[in-house]
Amino acid sequence: MLSEKSIESYFRTLQDEICQGLEKADGKGKFVEDLWTRPEGGGGRTRIITNGNVIEKGGVNFSAVHGPCPDFLRKEAGLEGNEDATFYATGTSMVIHPVNPMVPIIHMNVRYLKAGNLEWFGGGIDLTPHYIFEEDAKFFHTHLKKVCDEHTIQPLKRGEGDYYTEFKKWADDYFFIQHRNETRGIGGIFFDRLSAKDAISIDDRFKFVQAVGNSFLPVYLPLLEKNKNKPYTEDNRQWQLLRRGRYVEFNLVYDRGTKFGLLTNGRTESILMSLPPTANWEYSNQPAKDSLEEKTLGLLKKGIEWA
Amino acid sequence: MLSEKSIESYFRTLQDEICQGLEKADGKGKFVEDLWTRPEGGGGRTRIITNGNVIEKGGVNFSAVHGPCPDFLRKEAGLEGNEDATFYATGTSMVIHPVNPMVPIIHMNVRYLKAGNLEWFGGGIDLTPHYIFEEDAKFFHTHLKKVCDEHTIQPLKRGEGDYYTEFKKWADDYFFIQHRNETRGIGGIFFDRLSAKDAISIDDRFKFVQAVGNSFLPVYLPLLEKNKNKPYTEDNRQWQLLRRGRYVEFNLVYDRGTKFGLLTNGRTESILMSLPPTANWEYSNQPAKDSLEEKTLGLLKKGIEWA
Repeated sequence: MLSEKSIESYFRTLQDEICQGLEKADGKGKFVEDLWTRPEGGGGRTRIITNGNVIEKGGVNFSAVHGPCPDFLRKEAGLEGNEDATFYATGTSMVIHPVNPMVPIIHMNVRYLKAGNLEWFGGGIDLTPHYIFEEDAKFFHTHLKKVCDEHTIQPLKRGEGDYYTEFKKWADDYFFIQHRNETRGIGGIFFDRLSAKDAISIDDRFKFVQAVGNSFLPVYLPLLEKNKNKPYTEDNRQWQLLRRGRYVEFNLVYDRGTKFGLLTNGRTESILMSLPPTANWEYSNQPAKDSLEEKTLGLLKKGIEWA
Repeated sequence: MLSEKSIESYFRTLQDEICQGLEKADGKGKFVEDLWTRPEGGGGRTRIITNGNVIEKGGVNFSAVHGPCPDFLRKEAGLEGNEDATFYATGTSMVIHPVNPMVPIIHMNVRYLKAGNLEWFGGGIDLTPHYIFEEDAKFFHTHLKKVCDEHTIQPLKRGEGDYYTEFKKWADDYFFIQHRNETRGIGGIFFDRLSAKDAISIDDRFKFVQAVGNSFLPVYLPLLEKNKNKPYTEDNRQWQLLRRGRYVEFNLVYDRGTKFGLLTNGRTESILMSLPPTANWEYSNQPAKDSLEEKTLGLLKKGIEWA
């Protein structure tokens, strides 16, 4: 029997490990921790790193909250009419905005929710390069595919595929900026509401989520090391700032976690730690023909098989 | 009888006058025009000014569009089941992001919509100072009150007040960043769906909207002139960038026009011309005690009687 305590403990330790790994890789920046409590129950540890050698701004958040079950979950959880109904949610999420435009932005989130008869895992990991290097994209997706393949027990009901096929498509669909007709980055994997359906125990679901969480450092640090000392121009920096503007657009207009958090009185500073330190907007920017920027734009679309 | 042509012509001329007035005040920046057409009917003129002496980035947009009536309007317009139903909408809108943090950001929008039995004017004008100077806020609101008072024919059904009282409250409620518990700026006036109700003819509504449109230069240029040469520090600039971040948050999370435009396949570049050239985010920024920044934050709330 999986306990809330063991899940929470895993997410907490994961936050520690990732912060240590990132500090070591950065060599200068140190995470500053903000402990917070939630009036209705629970709390979290928000950790922010700024002005590092490699990381311009990054946030790694852990939270474990509980309290009265939110209205929108009651029906599904079989808790209608139950005034004492509660929920419990815990997770770790992070976004890293690097200094060097040749290093990609990364985002990961792993989470667990329990309310009434609901018991869900969700999460994902996705990459947003300012400049897409095909070799890096291939490395990233191949690594995620391996993690997924090792944990695919049987096809998901959602579609026909194995975990990677399913969750990669889910990420393509989710991280899409409709009003720009482009994906946020090169995707990755995304999954939600993984329960004990399909004869797969919730313990096996947890093992998969742990494997995803544990893949963060092995999949990001090599990309960071490989690109962090690449030379770049002021034009490259300007392009990075425009791409960060798109990141802001996605997070504020479409991201469900962000919108849900902001509209339900979540902890604003922890939610918006995902936003970049600086972002630019320019009217109708058009990359030069055959430039790296144009090539990148051409690859910001769904359905590319990187693995 | 008010004609679409006369309304459109007014909005078009207003755009010309405002662009000329801003160029003259700036002394260096020139508007660049982008003419566009909408596949379903109509089009617009988007004009952008960048890197001026006084204006860092500004956009002044005019559009007049028509075509099949959008679904969300059909019921209200009495056009349900009418396959040939059309709509017509025209308006001018603008946002100016100044160079000097002591000069406020301004936004104005005036618009007209006709569909079936609906005939509406809407719009408003509001100010977002990075630093609130009470004398400027008073000037701004007093001017708007005068415009409103000259056109208040009888109290509005919405509440009990005259135009200024009503529309000032509407702006306070509308330009509110809920997740920050602060207003976007010092408000101004905001109104929507002004029709020929209350025995006031649509011609009189149009006169009021013209008065609002014509107030843009007289109300903004003095604030721009007064503050454009004030000295400022790098800290002031950083504060400006943080306040612009809040502007982005409001526009992408709450602004109805922006959200509606983005989600209904509007012209993205024209809609997002409102975003600043550069904006910053910093985790849990806290102004120093008794600083100008802290004073400004204290005044970003609803219900302040500036006029």
